[in-house]
Amino acid sequence: MPRYQGLPASPGIAIGPALIYRTQKVTFTEQRVTVPRAEWRELQQAIQKAHTQLTALEERARKMAGEEEAAIFEAHRLFLDDEELLAKLRTMVLEERLNAKAAVHHAFEQYAEALLGLEEEYFQARAQDLRDVAQRVMKCLEGEGDDPSVESAAEPVILVAEDLTPSDTIRFDREQILGIVTARGGPTSHSAILARAMGVPAVVSAPFDLNEIRSGTLAILNGSTGLFSVGPTLHELEVARREKEEWEARRRAELSQAELPAVTKDGAFRAEVVANIGSVEDAELAVQFGAEGVGLFRTEFLYLQRSTMPTITEQVRAYRRVFEVMGERPVVVRTLDIGGDKEVPYLGTEKEPNPFLGWRAIRMIRERPDVLENQFMALLQAAGQVTAAGIRCDLRIMLPMVSSVAEVERAREIYEEAWKALEAQGKALPEKVQFGIMVEVPSAALLADHFAPLVDFFSIGTNDLTQYTLAVDRTNERVSVLASPYHPAVLRLIEMTIRAAHAHGKWVGLCGELAGDPLAVPLLLGLRLDEFSMVPSSIPTIKDLIRRWSLKGAEEVAQGCLRFGLAADVIEYLKSQTPR
Amino acid sequence: MPRYQGLPASPGIAIGPALIYRTQKVTFTEQRVTVPRAEWRELQQAIQKAHTQLTALEERARKMAGEEEAAIFEAHRLFLDDEELLAKLRTMVLEERLNAKAAVHHAFEQYAEALLGLEEEYFQARAQDLRDVAQRVMKCLEGEGDDPSVESAAEPVILVAEDLTPSDTIRFDREQILGIVTARGGPTSHSAILARAMGVPAVVSAPFDLNEIRSGTLAILNGSTGLFSVGPTLHELEVARREKEEWEARRRAELSQAELPAVTKDGAFRAEVVANIGSVEDAELAVQFGAEGVGLFRTEFLYLQRSTMPTITEQVRAYRRVFEVMGERPVVVRTLDIGGDKEVPYLGTEKEPNPFLGWRAIRMIRERPDVLENQFMALLQAAGQVTAAGIRCDLRIMLPMVSSVAEVERAREIYEEAWKALEAQGKALPEKVQFGIMVEVPSAALLADHFAPLVDFFSIGTNDLTQYTLAVDRTNERVSVLASPYHPAVLRLIEMTIRAAHAHGKWVGLCGELAGDPLAVPLLLGLRLDEFSMVPSSIPTIKDLIRRWSLKGAEEVAQGCLRFGLAADVIEYLKSQTPR
Repeated sequence: MPRYQGLPASPGIAIGPALIYRTQKVTFTEQRVTVPRAEWRELQQAIQKAHTQLTALEERARKMAGEEEAAIFEAHRLFLDDEELLAKLRTMVLEERLNAKAAVHHAFEQYAEALLGLEEEYFQARAQDLRDVAQRVMKCLEGEGDDPSVESAAEPVILVAEDLTPSDTIRFDREQILGIVTARGGPTSHSAILARAMGVPAVVSAPFDLNEIRSGTLAILNGSTGLFSVGPTLHELEVARREKEEWEARRRAELSQAELPAVTKDGAFRAEVVANIGSVEDAELAVQFGAEGVGLFRTEFLYLQRSTMPTITEQVRAYRRVFEVMGERPVVVRTLDIGGDKEVPYLGTEKEPNPFLGWRAIRMIRERPDVLENQFMALLQAAGQVTAAGIRCDLRIMLPMVSSVAEVERAREIYEEAWKALEAQGKALPEKVQFGIMVEVPSAALLADHFAPLVDFFSIGTNDLTQYTLAVDRTNERVSVLASPYHPAVLRLIEMTIRAAHAHGKWVGLCGELAGDPLAVPLLLGLRLDEFSMVPSSIPTIKDLIRRWSLKGAEEVAQGCLRFGLAADVIEYLKSQTPR
Repeated sequence: MPRYQGLPASPGIAIGPALIYRTQKVTFTEQRVTVPRAEWRELQQAIQKAHTQLTALEERARKMAGEEEAAIFEAHRLFLDDEELLAKLRTMVLEERLNAKAAVHHAFEQYAEALLGLEEEYFQARAQDLRDVAQRVMKCLEGEGDDPSVESAAEPVILVAEDLTPSDTIRFDREQILGIVTARGGPTSHSAILARAMGVPAVVSAPFDLNEIRSGTLAILNGSTGLFSVGPTLHELEVARREKEEWEARRRAELSQAELPAVTKDGAFRAEVVANIGSVEDAELAVQFGAEGVGLFRTEFLYLQRSTMPTITEQVRAYRRVFEVMGERPVVVRTLDIGGDKEVPYLGTEKEPNPFLGWRAIRMIRERPDVLENQFMALLQAAGQVTAAGIRCDLRIMLPMVSSVAEVERAREIYEEAWKALEAQGKALPEKVQFGIMVEVPSAALLADHFAPLVDFFSIGTNDLTQYTLAVDRTNERVSVLASPYHPAVLRLIEMTIRAAHAHGKWVGLCGELAGDPLAVPLLLGLRLDEFSMVPSSIPTIKDLIRRWSLKGAEEVAQGCLRFGLAADVIEYLKSQTPR
């Protein structure tokens, strides 16, 4: 039977008939219109209609998957309220006399292209959202109804598609979907996010051709390994059924123990297992999945899609909401990490030939100390207010992209000044704050012994660290295959960082994808990584795995890994190891 | 007196009156022309006139500065023969009805912008050339005469300008120019190259405003330290005179001993001092300056500004010329290092969001093994032919941008196949060939112990190694201040690389700018760097400095450097050290 190796996007196993789902894309020809005012009226009506549809979809998503998923459609709806976007559409139609469909395409596409230039997969997914909204408005222009109610299949199916938009995904009832497999998209595309939230197994980037598969054919999808098989033999079906039962039993067990600490089975080591978040909704999810805190709170959302700096008051409000959800659990907040891959005029970012090696994050400190100062002020006030309200907030501030000791020294000065200024104003302040840095530039790992005395902790960002250590842009498909966090050079830097930190009595976290990868557990545990930070839904699995290892067993595996010269050999070796 | 700290561009000290030189830039307004054919005729005539001027300038440069400098104007002239450029101009004028000046501006500027996106400072300088040629053609369109004969000053002067084009520089007689200082440009701009070739002290990027300085004011320029002072006191003048005499005496001594080996004064260590070259002319210069070989022969020139792959025959011819000049001295040839910052359709490069982290150099090996195979074939044949002619050519092949052991293994396979194929064809082959890699990606340095058994040598590319280790694009002015090869993280990687190589009995070269920096001599010597590779004119100075140190003294300095956490501290420490 045909087997396709894709990327695991949402764990679990699905067995059932395939349903081929083809998205109908609206096409258009670009024209100059003779009566721009009429065209503009039509476009306004279409936008209004799309608005109404999205409100309904939001409600449906709230019922089917939860608040976070409803937020996807809320975000879609907000694109339609974006004044800049509307002004652009208006200019295109009324002044440039472009037809409405072409205007929608160009305006949304420009915006999407800008997002596609960004580092984080998060923004890549937002670009897909924009295209989704553009298609919706174009369909409304065609007068097509998009009833958000069910498009039901006769029996539960494995949804097979080229790619899925959130709108596509939400058209189906949860009970109708056994699993989702797409030929495109990454593990952080919205289909993947929705699938994980709905608890539906999913595989993305599976190398099939839609024409090779017929609707109704029996298929097996393994969202943990990324394998998608069509037309299994009876024997293969039997094996898959057994695996499915085992997986489900195990997941139930993991979830039932998600709240328990991650202590090695010999009791020799306890790791903190915490979450990467980017919003208050993520924080809520993190707590549900047993997160012992937040290892990475990304703050870029406060700065994007706006034309002025967020005020301190706005920031305080946003931080407080997260601190309140997390209570006394530690929250590591990463200060702003935006660069030339994103147009943010009020920050002074510029288009750069190599934005990943450019003016970004902590490097803004010389030209724009005010950005960091405001963020420190807001974080301290938010933590102070929450503490004053009776919750002993455990704030930990973390600087991104640090490459030189001088940057940390300068940032600490600004931090001390912010603290003193707030003190002088009589503001409530938190009882304790930790100050740390991301280790994501090779020089920070190489000089960890010089950085350690200046900070309370390190958090290793393996995604960027891999990128720089191997000189590979991991968002560039042509070379991304070279960028493995299992590359022995990256492992050596991780080992070096942890060793130096511990020698100075400091703790080390890791907030790259590696932390949530089950394969890496004995390796990172064996290096005595103190804190594993990952997407909330992975927490129960990683906690469970940590509990299966003894510290000594993991240390042997870690030492074994450090002997190799090739990432492939490290991976093969790790696959051969079982908990001991 | 006002003092301006610029960048040293050509060593030596000049004392004399300043001459403010303002370049008159041709301006233009963009228009649609009514008779495009007439406009096109005028443009053709202007191009012809510029062509004639450049031929005269080429002759003048040959007399004043030599072959290499004449080649600058030859290159200018060749831009005017570039068919693609001429076709673009033709389309702009005849079809888009653009006025000639605007067409010239846009066509040349497009080309220049493409070059400005490139990594090597070499291409940055070529972009300046293009703008120089565009200005010349525009002046010709205005009917202005540009007599290449002397524009003489009454007495020898220090030329002070915002920036200088080669055409500007060559307008003056060598005897009329004591020194050159510009507010812009880098150490590899053409003014700097010309200044070095003419033996004129020069400073670039000095932060003065042309309006602050009056022509005729006495000034002092130190091309070794980068300092430019205007209106000195008598005492300061005395000091400068003494320094000038000392410098000249020393340079004479260095040049007289350029042929001698670079052995430490205690006789404990001999370093090879070799040249970085990019053409046969550079090779000739290298020999004149006492180079013991070539540590980096860049081969990109064979692949740029053309629309098809260079044939093996073409390549053999180019390599042979260099091998013949270098004789039995070792020649390290770097295989092609081109990427997405350069449009080379026949190689399949594409525009990338971060070309420095993209598909380039050895990474082409999976998609385009033919490129490397052809280059191996050509290098082996060229070395074989030279050897057969009685010169025991010492060819050393070097792979750029290596990040994984797998890349070296694959390249060696292709190399072995190329050797066997030539052998089967009965071609003459060299007696011995060394096979090595650039260490310029952090992972290569970190895994040097794994790479060492696979190669005959390493060559550390400190420019790129610094860039990746610190995640700083050194061509991005906004962050380039962060990119110091003296950053302790870079020094640790250098130390690691040399230690691993020597443990396996392999030798290590260094071909970044650090090798030619007098300040770095005891540091690199103390780490027992085997080969220092640099611009030819620096060779006498570095050889002389190596001879002043004992190995033991240098080792103490190197160990001292490795203690620091900041680049600034390393530099300050090195400045305080004297040979011992």
